[in-house]
Amino acid sequence: MRQPVELHHASRLINHGPTVLVGSAHGGRRNLMAAAWSMPVEFTPPRIAIVIDKKTFTRELVSASGGFAVSIPGRALLDATYAVGSVSGRDLPDKFSSYGIASFDGPVLGQPFATDAVAWMECRLIPEPHTEDAYDTCFAEVVWAAADPRVFDRGRWSFRDDNTELHTLHHLGGGNFAWPQRSEQATPLAPTIQPPRR
Amino acid sequence: MRQPVELHHASRLINHGPTVLVGSAHGGRRNLMAAAWSMPVEFTPPRIAIVIDKKTFTRELVSASGGFAVSIPGRALLDATYAVGSVSGRDLPDKFSSYGIASFDGPVLGQPFATDAVAWMECRLIPEPHTEDAYDTCFAEVVWAAADPRVFDRGRWSFRDDNTELHTLHHLGGGNFAWPQRSEQATPLAPTIQPPRR
Repeated sequence: MRQPVELHHASRLINHGPTVLVGSAHGGRRNLMAAAWSMPVEFTPPRIAIVIDKKTFTRELVSASGGFAVSIPGRALLDATYAVGSVSGRDLPDKFSSYGIASFDGPVLGQPFATDAVAWMECRLIPEPHTEDAYDTCFAEVVWAAADPRVFDRGRWSFRDDNTELHTLHHLGGGNFAWPQRSEQATPLAPTIQPPRR
Repeated sequence: MRQPVELHHASRLINHGPTVLVGSAHGGRRNLMAAAWSMPVEFTPPRIAIVIDKKTFTRELVSASGGFAVSIPGRALLDATYAVGSVSGRDLPDKFSSYGIASFDGPVLGQPFATDAVAWMECRLIPEPHTEDAYDTCFAEVVWAAADPRVFDRGRWSFRDDNTELHTLHHLGGGNFAWPQRSEQATPLAPTIQPPRR
């Protein structure tokens, strides 16, 4: 179930640190990898930073095409997320079909998404040769976004007991993933007035 | 309760995308702000990227001192985290004392941590003028790390029903924070062999 997300809300999709899937395609080849390391860097225009190791097949495709597709998996894609994060796309003909992961092409750049994720962001690479080389950190602008309205609506995630299969995955290491089962509203704390020292 | 974390495990502390507190100090002034946007960029040496807006008081102090202290708050610091993320340090004499947040100084760089957090990373800025300017993204190397062993031990977070007050916070927006109540081990998925098309 896909509902468009207004671009000024797109950075919210990864604000809470979920592990994402990076889809890439160029010259008739495509790939999908898991990435735990990403973050927004700006709301408007929506920009993100994401670590894509220079040795990966994904990096090769992203550098060639200038774009990539970020799918945000929910718990239903737990095992698939771990699988595509553990095997190189160079060793398989196509990770989407090899693992039975349904896909659709992004409307702006044609980059491949995982259909059964819970949110999607199509990204155009902003070339930054130094940080790509020194830190494997790629900057990109989000050019299209959508989300499953059962878990992200009007610019906000809503993790509830009745939609646990749609909760995002947060990698703790070694294939162990946490998910945000609930949330809580913070109360603005008033500063305590400090008495002057005697 | 603080237990040293081996530096090759330090990046794990923010691998799952928690909101963090950034402590900074220079020339007799100090500050504390919340940052939802951070990520590891390397395990060894442990390096991170974090977004610190160039207009903030924190950025001024970090640029001057060349370091900062990342405290990772648990649920016990929910309201404090929201508070220090909503007010500028320029408007208060000292956010630690104004909000009654206990502090200690980092052992390597002397940067200020929040004592009641659940993990801590002292960071040395790696000057990158272009990305600091264009994306407010600061790169840094972790030079010291520690964690509360009740929730992070032997390089791994452990979020359980008996330590919910120590669970990390993940900002959804507008002061609404999710926390990872449980985790699940993924099962390596075997690729499906695709029959050749007829």
